[in-house]
Amino acid sequence: MTTHDVRFPTSREFAGSDAVNTDPDYSAAYLELVTDSRDARHGHGFVFTTGRGNDVQLAAIEALRHHVIGRDVDELLDDLGAFATELSSDSQLRWLGPEKGVIHMACGAIINALWDLKAKRAGKPLWMLLSELTPEEIVDLIDFRYISDALSRDEALAVLEPKVSSRAERIATLTACGYPAYTTSPGWLGYDDELVGQLSVEAVAAGFSMIKLKVGRDVAEDRRRLALVRNLLGPTFPIAVDANQRWGVDEAVEWMHQLAEFNPAWIEEPTSPDDIVGHAAIRARIKPIPVATGEHAHNRIMFKQLLQAGAIDVVQIDACRVGGVNEILAILLLAAKFGVRVCPHAGGVGLCELVQHFAMFDYVAVTGEMSGRAIEYVDHLHEHFLTPVRLLHGRYMPPSAPGSGAEMLPTSISEYSFPRGAAWLAS
Amino acid sequence: MTTHDVRFPTSREFAGSDAVNTDPDYSAAYLELVTDSRDARHGHGFVFTTGRGNDVQLAAIEALRHHVIGRDVDELLDDLGAFATELSSDSQLRWLGPEKGVIHMACGAIINALWDLKAKRAGKPLWMLLSELTPEEIVDLIDFRYISDALSRDEALAVLEPKVSSRAERIATLTACGYPAYTTSPGWLGYDDELVGQLSVEAVAAGFSMIKLKVGRDVAEDRRRLALVRNLLGPTFPIAVDANQRWGVDEAVEWMHQLAEFNPAWIEEPTSPDDIVGHAAIRARIKPIPVATGEHAHNRIMFKQLLQAGAIDVVQIDACRVGGVNEILAILLLAAKFGVRVCPHAGGVGLCELVQHFAMFDYVAVTGEMSGRAIEYVDHLHEHFLTPVRLLHGRYMPPSAPGSGAEMLPTSISEYSFPRGAAWLAS
Repeated sequence: MTTHDVRFPTSREFAGSDAVNTDPDYSAAYLELVTDSRDARHGHGFVFTTGRGNDVQLAAIEALRHHVIGRDVDELLDDLGAFATELSSDSQLRWLGPEKGVIHMACGAIINALWDLKAKRAGKPLWMLLSELTPEEIVDLIDFRYISDALSRDEALAVLEPKVSSRAERIATLTACGYPAYTTSPGWLGYDDELVGQLSVEAVAAGFSMIKLKVGRDVAEDRRRLALVRNLLGPTFPIAVDANQRWGVDEAVEWMHQLAEFNPAWIEEPTSPDDIVGHAAIRARIKPIPVATGEHAHNRIMFKQLLQAGAIDVVQIDACRVGGVNEILAILLLAAKFGVRVCPHAGGVGLCELVQHFAMFDYVAVTGEMSGRAIEYVDHLHEHFLTPVRLLHGRYMPPSAPGSGAEMLPTSISEYSFPRGAAWLAS
Repeated sequence: MTTHDVRFPTSREFAGSDAVNTDPDYSAAYLELVTDSRDARHGHGFVFTTGRGNDVQLAAIEALRHHVIGRDVDELLDDLGAFATELSSDSQLRWLGPEKGVIHMACGAIINALWDLKAKRAGKPLWMLLSELTPEEIVDLIDFRYISDALSRDEALAVLEPKVSSRAERIATLTACGYPAYTTSPGWLGYDDELVGQLSVEAVAAGFSMIKLKVGRDVAEDRRRLALVRNLLGPTFPIAVDANQRWGVDEAVEWMHQLAEFNPAWIEEPTSPDDIVGHAAIRARIKPIPVATGEHAHNRIMFKQLLQAGAIDVVQIDACRVGGVNEILAILLLAAKFGVRVCPHAGGVGLCELVQHFAMFDYVAVTGEMSGRAIEYVDHLHEHFLTPVRLLHGRYMPPSAPGSGAEMLPTSISEYSFPRGAAWLAS
């Protein structure tokens, strides 16, 4: 296992700025697993961070090294469910979480790197590898600890089984038409009105099914921007807003009452990601505006409760926040059981590349639904990946290259290594 | 700021073993702040961990260094409320939490070290320093973000103000009689029946108001041990049980139905610390057995919800889990408003030394209550601290030495430094 501290100086251009994340340097605590067996021998994974702290995240990945080194690769890949549970249950490291923060994201990066390796060995993109598993194989990957009161193994099977016979149809649809995308590229708080307007119009022209604007710094400013964009795009085009956790419960309700006239498609992260009770209260008080959250929901137990409490209308899975592919499968199945749609969080660096696999797997094998759903898209840093996402008419086209999409170009890793890569030495 | 990786090889003796933490090496990610001003110049703080990962915790503390170094000490100590918010709001580091896991505990350790320094400069033990603040000064220390829907600033003042005139009385009571303690020392899972029985009888004789046994590995074993101890101590002596997150919701209910006949004083950590909805369900289904949790509840927002949802009967604050003294004050006030008793979590290394200050402050200035309450006590590793806790007839006697109690002996730091201290080189 080798690790790299890769950071992109995005804060220099204000891309990615919102009401809380004011100066992110999009970064990856990146790892590569190498085996000495067979043909495909490299698995890649990472945790996305926003700059400072990428070194802490790497330290957490390094702390799990003893679980990986020297293990038989076939054994690990044959039972990734057991290995995911082993990682998150380390009898000493779990004190640092449990199942939250850097130690849990580190488990996720290692699990994801193993799935990347597994998909490369199978010669398939990850979404396809997952979509070819039987319902029993899928359910065996899931740790039902702490969620079986809301989703039992049998209930998960009951979600998956009716979809088996029509999987091939949906794979064909996906291959022909792709999966809907929405974009956040126009709406960063650091952009001026003219740029926001121009990028919004361009996004609609490019075929995106929705755009998203950042809000929460100043309500008058939010109203002005929303009026501007609503005016440009017409009364019905979906425009979501995202407060990035800026508000308390009452403040969220009052603020959204002032934005309601602009018909927001959803309000994202209105308050602390930990506040399940708060999200439920906000949702009840701002109906019919949908409430979305998830990029900071740290594990399946939090998603379980958000669903049990009727707190959200949109589940926003993230590829790097929870404990990896296995826990994401649990969350997709929870959402399916509760009948709540999934619209993955992406952007950052590499998140689009990863998360598309889960949305596509969900469509093929879990819910069979694309309508009202979309994967987030942000148009930066894709050039650093070996197999960047491919969009056509505002839709994600299913990747065909083997693996998870996490593999970064060696030249990018070297140039953006912190603090001694060329991009940082030059600054 | 200097930091130390201090680890005690406690796993060699099975002390501290429970159903989930099977082999803890009690450890401290330890820090010392030094200033160049005035007489008292050293502040000490730490995060308790269970061994592996103590280095990750130190990396998180180091990542906050830029907030501390070069700052004016008077300015920081004069507004620790603002500084606590600054730390937990670092625009890049917050991605690693927010307000959870190692990055949040790192904020707590730095805040606690500053409070240690502040108390030493004032020449007072921390509990007394806090107990002499006005209600307004206390409320100014609290970050009401995300909790004001359950506890407003005015409501917090309304809790504190009626207690001001009788503070002196309670300080006198505390000084004379101390604060009740209970002990977990008899009940580790690694101990055999004979030792458990002997230590339980000794604990009662020593004056402890309750003992606690670890459960959750095997229900027959739990019933055998509880019968043994119940038989030795009689039908009414309080015996709490602690499952350390071992169960899912349904399993917790079924297991506790099998332990109910032994009249447990509470069930602690029956399931995941993240599962607010689950704790509420368990509590409703095992009534009247009280439900306790908190040592892994990662911030004030989680405690707020546990209280809002009626999920717990006992709030177990921990001195090192949340963001330090300031956030602990918020949690004490939330518990007081909801009328739920606080019984602090301690044990580990140094947790008894720290947490006693908060229970005593709560008694003097917040609730005025000691009845039905007790601070956990475990009898190891106190000898490594400059001012170890002092118990008399099973009660914590209020510390009189200036500071928070966090200061470790330099010889202990050196001997138990990992991996090059004498205790580790010898192994």
